[in-house]
Amino acid sequence: MGSITGDIEAQMDYAFTVYRGTFIQSILPDSGSKPELSRNQGALWVSAADGRIKGWDWQANNDNGFAELMTRNRWVDIDAVGAQGQVNSHGSKIRVKIVIASEEQNEFFFPGFIDTHIHAPQYPNVGLFGSSTLLDWLETYTFPVESRFGSPPDPKTGHQTKTDPKDTPLLAQQIYDQVISRTLSHGTTCASYYATNHVPATNALSSLCHTRGQRAFIGRACMDNPKFCVDYYRDFSAEDSIVATRQTIEYIHTLDPEGKLVKPIVTPRFAPSCTRPALQSLGELAASYSPPLHIQTHISENVNELALVKELFPEADSYAGVYDKYNLLTPRTILAHAVHLSTDERALVRERKAKISHCPASNSALGSGICPVRTLLDEGITVGLGTDVSGGYSPSILEAARQACLASRLLGQSAAWQRDHSQDADGKGSDGREKLSVPESLYLATCGGAAVVDMSSDLGGFDMGMLWDVQLIRLGGVKLGEKSPLDGVPDGSADLVKAGPVGNVDLFGTESWEEKIQKWVWSGDDRNVKAVWVGGRLVHSRV
Amino acid sequence: MGSITGDIEAQMDYAFTVYRGTFIQSILPDSGSKPELSRNQGALWVSAADGRIKGWDWQANNDNGFAELMTRNRWVDIDAVGAQGQVNSHGSKIRVKIVIASEEQNEFFFPGFIDTHIHAPQYPNVGLFGSSTLLDWLETYTFPVESRFGSPPDPKTGHQTKTDPKDTPLLAQQIYDQVISRTLSHGTTCASYYATNHVPATNALSSLCHTRGQRAFIGRACMDNPKFCVDYYRDFSAEDSIVATRQTIEYIHTLDPEGKLVKPIVTPRFAPSCTRPALQSLGELAASYSPPLHIQTHISENVNELALVKELFPEADSYAGVYDKYNLLTPRTILAHAVHLSTDERALVRERKAKISHCPASNSALGSGICPVRTLLDEGITVGLGTDVSGGYSPSILEAARQACLASRLLGQSAAWQRDHSQDADGKGSDGREKLSVPESLYLATCGGAAVVDMSSDLGGFDMGMLWDVQLIRLGGVKLGEKSPLDGVPDGSADLVKAGPVGNVDLFGTESWEEKIQKWVWSGDDRNVKAVWVGGRLVHSRV
Repeated sequence: MGSITGDIEAQMDYAFTVYRGTFIQSILPDSGSKPELSRNQGALWVSAADGRIKGWDWQANNDNGFAELMTRNRWVDIDAVGAQGQVNSHGSKIRVKIVIASEEQNEFFFPGFIDTHIHAPQYPNVGLFGSSTLLDWLETYTFPVESRFGSPPDPKTGHQTKTDPKDTPLLAQQIYDQVISRTLSHGTTCASYYATNHVPATNALSSLCHTRGQRAFIGRACMDNPKFCVDYYRDFSAEDSIVATRQTIEYIHTLDPEGKLVKPIVTPRFAPSCTRPALQSLGELAASYSPPLHIQTHISENVNELALVKELFPEADSYAGVYDKYNLLTPRTILAHAVHLSTDERALVRERKAKISHCPASNSALGSGICPVRTLLDEGITVGLGTDVSGGYSPSILEAARQACLASRLLGQSAAWQRDHSQDADGKGSDGREKLSVPESLYLATCGGAAVVDMSSDLGGFDMGMLWDVQLIRLGGVKLGEKSPLDGVPDGSADLVKAGPVGNVDLFGTESWEEKIQKWVWSGDDRNVKAVWVGGRLVHSRV
Repeated sequence: MGSITGDIEAQMDYAFTVYRGTFIQSILPDSGSKPELSRNQGALWVSAADGRIKGWDWQANNDNGFAELMTRNRWVDIDAVGAQGQVNSHGSKIRVKIVIASEEQNEFFFPGFIDTHIHAPQYPNVGLFGSSTLLDWLETYTFPVESRFGSPPDPKTGHQTKTDPKDTPLLAQQIYDQVISRTLSHGTTCASYYATNHVPATNALSSLCHTRGQRAFIGRACMDNPKFCVDYYRDFSAEDSIVATRQTIEYIHTLDPEGKLVKPIVTPRFAPSCTRPALQSLGELAASYSPPLHIQTHISENVNELALVKELFPEADSYAGVYDKYNLLTPRTILAHAVHLSTDERALVRERKAKISHCPASNSALGSGICPVRTLLDEGITVGLGTDVSGGYSPSILEAARQACLASRLLGQSAAWQRDHSQDADGKGSDGREKLSVPESLYLATCGGAAVVDMSSDLGGFDMGMLWDVQLIRLGGVKLGEKSPLDGVPDGSADLVKAGPVGNVDLFGTESWEEKIQKWVWSGDDRNVKAVWVGGRLVHSRV
């Protein structure tokens, strides 16, 4: 049986990888119902050619059943076969690689997390935000760090002249490389990244994602409005925004012509940072491709931001209306935050089939407010999770799932919620329905995210034909001996750290499998992510 | 120079441990001001005899200064001296052990965390709470797990007949042992524990804390009110509550006659679980000792609980009034939660000098609400942090500090806060003053906790004479090479995990020391706790 950390390159000559063990996902059993966890045990196979799921057998959930599956399919385990030379003697047999999730170690396969909103260049600022709120946070923390990812435009032409990723400062390259390492280590198989407005650095991020094997949408942040943007870090004209954005799109299309792994995403930073001509041109740019390009921006994060948008765009009915006017509300648009949308705005977002990235860690950290996720879902709006690094203090979508649960538990006590629900029959404003459960937050982290990036048929679960973008979670075993701890001086916590559970999840042997998932969500971290695959390729592992 | 993990037992023959490196704490510079981080570099020494700080020298912040310090004091490093036999030749020299915090690895000494509210027997339920709120959570999750820590009382007499810790079920012993391991590994040097109502298990917890070396207050949970408590898990009379509580107090006083490490704490679970005679007797019991015993209970956590207290104690003016009537509001009383206290109740708490344990992770997880910590502090009430395992989902006080910051950033948007502050001049309800900063949350986690357990002169900082209850934090080094990540296919994240930073804190070499502390608070975990001492004894280390 193969180890996941074996020498992959030397063993590429096989037709399928057969994953064996427990498979857990969060699914919507019926339209209109709430997400539930689903669990299967047995074997599932993925084509080495295209990294997609080709079948499964839930009868193969023990050694006999698995042997039958192997025989029936004329599969032969390449690791059991041994040296390359021996393979030919198997004649018509089909070579497969086998990866096992250990039941004893409480390992299971789970769909990879999708981070629908993350600012890669802000990663060095993770945890640095003081007591700021959105607008002062941008000026104090964000623009200074982002501006160091490249040179300002040529003062004569206003254009950026360089496009080569290698023209990116070394520290910036290393930061991007580290963001990818960290998000992969937390189980993020797909991320929708904001870069900066620098073409070389944006191209460098694209190249690194492509090389490292992380599925990604890469967006050059467009920001040309001198009324809001600082002089040391902005595009000097709408035209420059568009030209430079085109350069990054072309780079990505050359890098990955079929868009198998990395795709461009049109990124007006947010309404206040763009002039009307820039918004107009970016909407046109996205629509000029077939299929239209993805779009990402921010909306309605903070009350002072709402006032600013009203001041800058007095002609618009609403914040959502600004984007709609410039054809930026599309079925492939990711709107980050959406904390304070009005009823009319939500109707417009739904009408346009635009998607929402819920970023609870950020919303709490910057004091932006609590996004009424239940309301969005009830109204039929698609929601996924985002870390919003570094408004959010963590690159982990598991942390985002936790914070989504916590924020939803405080929602009923918020003034905004009580105001909007004062007409409820019982007058109490909250019946607890607004709370997100663990299965729901995991659904948002996987299937929800897949829908937000318009890849529902490819990502988020274990359906036939889906891409193998998956994490192998290891909770660790139950380690309780027969010995009374009262019988001797234990050796500090050495036993715990060296031989005990993985990370902080403690199991006592009494937990149901659903409870183990809850413990993973509330106590787990990157130590529990044993391996991560994207499109069938192993992109992270932890011994 | 000594390693912290050396063979301590063999080297006990020394007068001081000399800690060398960076010392960071959160202090109140002036009464009335806000807590600030303070940083010193040099050497500080702790007596091996009593584990207390005997002096420091901030001039000894380089090799020459340190050598001078050693010479001036006629100190000799026992690890440099080598074998025991050689020591005598040093004549009148004083043997010291040296422990170094590495600057390169961004290590620093920080006061140990104080968990002012934690339910040890609920540890197996960490992360299991569903969408419940306090009262249904108790019935569904809590009472079943706690009841398994012992046998019910003798049905004839109503009394518990056993007191020997060894009469505790093995699994319960192991759970208690694991709670101690985990809290130590997260840097908790002192905890105020709720046990169950079982005498043997309560004594077992006391014994384990004493053996493992964790400073602890141990409280047998008193709960005799059949109107609220379930039949399978309660005291059968007020008298039984008192008799059993006395048995645990006597056990602890025999175990640790001077109360150097472990002390009893009188623990009426909360008003609804106790009859009036039990409350009365527990108040008298605490007062009958000199000095009076500590007391811990819960107050005003959840709005349904408030209604229940009103229903059960119609004669009382308020929830706080119930405790006050039975002399349970004292300067040594720890009140957990205090989310919904009225102005009058806060005045009463302040008047009685009772202390408050703020448990933000629990309050958010159970949807109890947001405790207005700023209001409590402004009014002169003493506040510390509690994990409230397993209402809280984490045994880490660092997580409690994070959640205290996050909850405070949402406080201004809560209906309760806006109602109480509607008379503010600007009508906005929040000027941001309610937000807790990182230094403040760390102050609550250390000095605040010390004041809550009435040990301000012993714990929480690096003052002369204080106990060495300290954690050595290691953030890890900056690992950026000269190589462009664009130049080759990096080996997954193997470099990151094996050779990179410790845990999830990433440093890029640009951070100020204050920013490193912020990164620790927002991204750190138990991996960053390299060593923990209590009263000078090494009780946890991580290689």
